[in-house]
Amino acid sequence: MRIAVFAGDGIGPEVTAQAVRVLQALDLPGLELVEGDVGGAAYRKHGHPLPPETLAIARSSEAILFGAVGDFTLDHLERALRPEQAVLGLRKELGLFANLRPARVFAGLEDLSTLRPDVAGRIDLLIVRELNGDVYFGEKGMRTLDDGRRQGWDMMSYAEDEVRRIAHAGFKAAQGRARDGQPGKLCSVDKANVLETSQLWRDVMIEVAKDYPEVALTHMYVDNAAMQLVKDPGAFDVIVTGNLFGDILSDQASMCVGSIGLLASASLAEGSFGLYEPIHGSAPDIAGQGIANPMATILSAAMLLRHSFGLEEQAARIEAAVAGALADGVKGGDLGGSAGTQEIGDAIVARL
Amino acid sequence: MRIAVFAGDGIGPEVTAQAVRVLQALDLPGLELVEGDVGGAAYRKHGHPLPPETLAIARSSEAILFGAVGDFTLDHLERALRPEQAVLGLRKELGLFANLRPARVFAGLEDLSTLRPDVAGRIDLLIVRELNGDVYFGEKGMRTLDDGRRQGWDMMSYAEDEVRRIAHAGFKAAQGRARDGQPGKLCSVDKANVLETSQLWRDVMIEVAKDYPEVALTHMYVDNAAMQLVKDPGAFDVIVTGNLFGDILSDQASMCVGSIGLLASASLAEGSFGLYEPIHGSAPDIAGQGIANPMATILSAAMLLRHSFGLEEQAARIEAAVAGALADGVKGGDLGGSAGTQEIGDAIVARL
Ligand SMILES: CC(C)[C@H](C(=O)O)[C@@H](O)C(=O)O
Ligand SMILES: CC(C)[C@H](C(=O)O)[C@@H](O)C(=O)O
Repeated sequence: MRIAVFAGDGIGPEVTAQAVRVLQALDLPGLELVEGDVGGAAYRKHGHPLPPETLAIARSSEAILFGAVGDFTLDHLERALRPEQAVLGLRKELGLFANLRPARVFAGLEDLSTLRPDVAGRIDLLIVRELNGDVYFGEKGMRTLDDGRRQGWDMMSYAEDEVRRIAHAGFKAAQGRARDGQPGKLCSVDKANVLETSQLWRDVMIEVAKDYPEVALTHMYVDNAAMQLVKDPGAFDVIVTGNLFGDILSDQASMCVGSIGLLASASLAEGSFGLYEPIHGSAPDIAGQGIANPMATILSAAMLLRHSFGLEEQAARIEAAVAGALADGVKGGDLGGSAGTQEIGDAIVARL
Repeated sequence: MRIAVFAGDGIGPEVTAQAVRVLQALDLPGLELVEGDVGGAAYRKHGHPLPPETLAIARSSEAILFGAVGDFTLDHLERALRPEQAVLGLRKELGLFANLRPARVFAGLEDLSTLRPDVAGRIDLLIVRELNGDVYFGEKGMRTLDDGRRQGWDMMSYAEDEVRRIAHAGFKAAQGRARDGQPGKLCSVDKANVLETSQLWRDVMIEVAKDYPEVALTHMYVDNAAMQLVKDPGAFDVIVTGNLFGDILSDQASMCVGSIGLLASASLAEGSFGLYEPIHGSAPDIAGQGIANPMATILSAAMLLRHSFGLEEQAARIEAAVAGALADGVKGGDLGGSAGTQEIGDAIVARL
């Protein structure tokens, strides 16, 4: 069981340290943790946000536990050297094509949302975002047109196999969320009234749907999806969408929950490899003070055990420990409490 | 004063009729209203959602009052013939490059938002969306790659002059929103950490900012903007952004307000020409029943008088009449009331 631990920048190291304690507390047979540098921290040490050493550690591991990258003091660097490029590089190099972003309000924490408690309390959705294609990884550049004007350009595209594999990920996720005998629902979000990329996306979704007759597939334009996430986020079950729309909608959905210090994510490759990270960023303003909430990273470690190692029972134990700590009032400052990073880690380890 | 009236589909004709009554009630000297067909209605009559006759009427007018287009019974048509293409066609043919989308909660209507009343009540923002470029109007297509895979593709781009003119529109809007001696603020939304199109956008915004030293310019990534619109939409003043991000964020912001039956919009060309429309769609489910709320269309007529004819006083009169009717409890079903389309029109005309 070899897990790479890439703590990164800002609060990354603090929160990751607590998730590592949690993993160690589970007495997992053959657990091996290997640290690597990413983001601004890696740039300072190796001159690159994703050095070859780090990539080698990733490739020789079965999963990555990731903290956060981001350091505004490096904003002046050319884009390829900025901390966030570590994220894009890992996604592409390791074929992490399926980003799972669950958004659910923990019972009792409805008041942390800016949405009304009756609306927020019903949120329990999963966004499946494609991570390897779209306008993120197409050709792009800056050019001077014949008439002398500067132009920035980016190619947006999806090929059918790229859509097909994320479609399967979306349908499988919906299948896995059957409740009370009701099969899960899948809403595919695109902009097929304007984009050919979306038209292909929609066509392939409809093709793949034939393999999952029990899952109800609907289609929604991205502008409408952004509206419905405000109006009634509880109406969504699983949303599957492209890289760019997924970036926007998954962050919107997270903020609807309110407690982003509790939200975990997985970025999966084909097979069992995956990268797991909290959705909050590096939060440089509170870094190093011991007050960051490590729960999202700890919940990311639970996702890691579930998705990369099939350890459903251990994953559920971690999740129950976090829920238990919350129910007992162990809350970080972001949740209106006063528990510090270490104290929260202690509380969760104690409940395992 | 020649105004084209394009009522369109669904509830378009009903709500537009009331806005026309309001314009007529103002005794505007030389007011001439010319009707034209757009959308599904135009397709059924002329075989095209934006027939040449309609475009000719638009070109010979000083402004367009627009209802709504959209008709799901025509969804099977090829994209170029679908009702929504009328909107894209008018924007491009008439150079309507600046979409103004004000989002503000009317006093007393905070409860219509799914956001908590204290959060919703503070919303008073304006989104300035570029409408003539971006991935909307770039080259696009469906192709078969050498290895036989289908691929959908769309070119995203902005040239510096396209960004410059919308930047000026954004800065001018912020200038115009100075309050209590405080200058307006402008937040430019992009995805410059991933897109070259956005990098050019950001570079040009910074250049143009030199002409408006009193306006504070900030930059925000689109994913973060989608979060902040949930967390604290009241913190925004003017947002300027590209066509695609503007499509998503302006609809999100509208739904934050809650009462989309009250939201108007303007799409402006250089000079004084503009198209004015409610942001709600054609709402086929309630069309023809006389229950649609015409207030957003009436408020669009107010924007028309202000922006295309400089009739600030008359525009303000309409806005005051709408606010007065609302304050007196004249509300459509969408606002929890029971007033019909005609009744609301009557109430507003009576208050002029
Ligand atoms: C840092 C950035 C490139 C990244 C993205 O846009 O994918 C981030 O916003 C995310 O969602 O993980
Ligand atoms: C109908 C559609 C093409 C259009 C757009 O995406 O611009 C609509 O959503 C809008 O915002 O006016």
